[in-house]
Amino acid sequence: MTDFTATDHAMMARALRLAERGAYTTKPNPMVGCVIARGEEVVGEGWHQRQGGPHAEVFALQAAGARAKGATAYVTLEPCAHTGRTGPCADALVAAGVSRVVAAMRDPFPQVDGAGFERLRDAGIDVASGLMEAQARALNVGFLSRIERGRPWVRVKLACSLDGRTAMANGDSKWITGEAARADVMRWRARAGAILTGAGTVLADDPSLTVRLGDDTPFVPPLRVVLDPGLATIARGKVREGDAPTLYLHAPDIKPPRELAAERAAVPVQGAVADLHAVLALLAQREIGELHVEAGATLAGALLKAGLVDELLLYVAPVVMGERARPLFDGLGFADMAQRLRMSIVDSRHVGGDLRLRLRPAQD
Amino acid sequence: MTDFTATDHAMMARALRLAERGAYTTKPNPMVGCVIARGEEVVGEGWHQRQGGPHAEVFALQAAGARAKGATAYVTLEPCAHTGRTGPCADALVAAGVSRVVAAMRDPFPQVDGAGFERLRDAGIDVASGLMEAQARALNVGFLSRIERGRPWVRVKLACSLDGRTAMANGDSKWITGEAARADVMRWRARAGAILTGAGTVLADDPSLTVRLGDDTPFVPPLRVVLDPGLATIARGKVREGDAPTLYLHAPDIKPPRELAAERAAVPVQGAVADLHAVLALLAQREIGELHVEAGATLAGALLKAGLVDELLLYVAPVVMGERARPLFDGLGFADMAQRLRMSIVDSRHVGGDLRLRLRPAQD
Repeated sequence: MTDFTATDHAMMARALRLAERGAYTTKPNPMVGCVIARGEEVVGEGWHQRQGGPHAEVFALQAAGARAKGATAYVTLEPCAHTGRTGPCADALVAAGVSRVVAAMRDPFPQVDGAGFERLRDAGIDVASGLMEAQARALNVGFLSRIERGRPWVRVKLACSLDGRTAMANGDSKWITGEAARADVMRWRARAGAILTGAGTVLADDPSLTVRLGDDTPFVPPLRVVLDPGLATIARGKVREGDAPTLYLHAPDIKPPRELAAERAAVPVQGAVADLHAVLALLAQREIGELHVEAGATLAGALLKAGLVDELLLYVAPVVMGERARPLFDGLGFADMAQRLRMSIVDSRHVGGDLRLRLRPAQD
Repeated sequence: MTDFTATDHAMMARALRLAERGAYTTKPNPMVGCVIARGEEVVGEGWHQRQGGPHAEVFALQAAGARAKGATAYVTLEPCAHTGRTGPCADALVAAGVSRVVAAMRDPFPQVDGAGFERLRDAGIDVASGLMEAQARALNVGFLSRIERGRPWVRVKLACSLDGRTAMANGDSKWITGEAARADVMRWRARAGAILTGAGTVLADDPSLTVRLGDDTPFVPPLRVVLDPGLATIARGKVREGDAPTLYLHAPDIKPPRELAAERAAVPVQGAVADLHAVLALLAQREIGELHVEAGATLAGALLKAGLVDELLLYVAPVVMGERARPLFDGLGFADMAQRLRMSIVDSRHVGGDLRLRLRPAQD
């Protein structure tokens, strides 16, 4: 292991914060930040803003100009070695004369995957990787899941009462949580490559599933995905309106009426239940990294039962809805304690009068 | 309103922390702390430790000795004016020659209730009250409830999963939460004047309801109260064992077998359901301040429905138990959102791998 200095850590932390600024806009590309420093002095910095736009290193090198010569470049992801719309960042770093490159992690993308480091080393640059790698991985959890596992990072958002209920028996759920929690959800939607829902939710709640941030923060609208094996909802709903694309996933033998044309794709279905692994593989092929799920108890329960939930984003409102109200998950008919699904709390936060929990499956 | 200085605040905060040291031992008396200071110099301090023992002021005056003359006494509760096992604290403060007394709050206890302040003022002492009163009231929420409302402060402890379940359908609930949460519960038990449970919990879980702190911290064992209208459980259970008293509350027309004598009291019962207001009034008459409830969904639900829950102490374990598992509350068959019970989160804390929420009914 390379030893990194306190300055190295501070610079990489800065690069990670810069990278995060692209959270709503770089998809499907990873977020990347770059800081160019001479000792403790920052001489240039930048972050990747949009697919098709310059990479973080390009912005940082432009800002540094001639002062990049002999400097250290801190990058949150291995510089690319292939030619995209801009030339390879590794070559740009070489051309600028930086003497050292510190990366948080190797880029597992097949066209990079070590080739960026190799090109830098071949040019005589001192290259070190692995500084704050955990933080860098957490930043691009969606991109990494898509590349490394061939499926999106699945974040299931749910809102419930203290007694774990998501709606009254009559279906009424407006509103369990307060305005602040609902605004917070919008920021998670904005990060996502796609928002997945089920036909039942479209029929019951008619959500638009668009991003409304309440200000002019730029974002790339997530693809709205309706899992609807029988295409029962294709003729209706706010989910077809607004400035975001919509994709229907349906059983192979179902065809919509010609006049209701919409983007759609077939997924394997068994007994009216879609193959969730196939759904996720299809979305990864469409370059979806973070998949934000806003669905009912049935789809949420099925994802959980299949072990496909990477993160549960649970808003808990301090209300009691009673035992007739609807459960958080359906389809989890456990009989004894040994069957319970164990998670761990990543963080908890008060959002307005509600509580927001982020949970991941427990690692044993 | 009197203006208090920063020193006044610091001294009262210190007195409040001292008072809190009596949390497990002063019951049924209130916790009281006293700091005697000359300017910013503390010359004596003390707290009430046990019923029958010296009051906080007595300890503090002893420590201060002659330096109490001309000093300021900070007390978290109005000094007493009546003769108990020690003489009135107001007289002791006068005799010691303090020139100023700052109290957090008036003592609503009928034998004090302003008489302490009056005696001090009559002796020419400068008296001010109301400094950090909210904190002082929070400290003695049980004592104050008993005196002011004629019923204990009711704290309902429950442990549940993320999906609001307290046990599997087969009754298995060992263990939803981890060791740290269960140890935390012991400290809440230790504070309580009594621990209330129902016959159903005795039959299902056979809890001892004793305090096990894991060290030699002194505490006064809370009275264990079993609400058992038909005295169905009087012949059994760990709740009759151990070093704490046990009280059975039963329907007026029920008599236990002579050989199973136990302390008991009759409470009004309607259709096998005890009158919870009468239960609480009876416990207040027995000088119970904080009532800690560890019961099942039925009793917890009934208390909640009757508006008798002052505080919900909810341990949430990051597990999913499924929709067949048992609900947090029974008897709350709400049909629409307007009926939901609204609470507010007082605080949330991670305890081991679990989350602890303290909630109170929402104030509109």
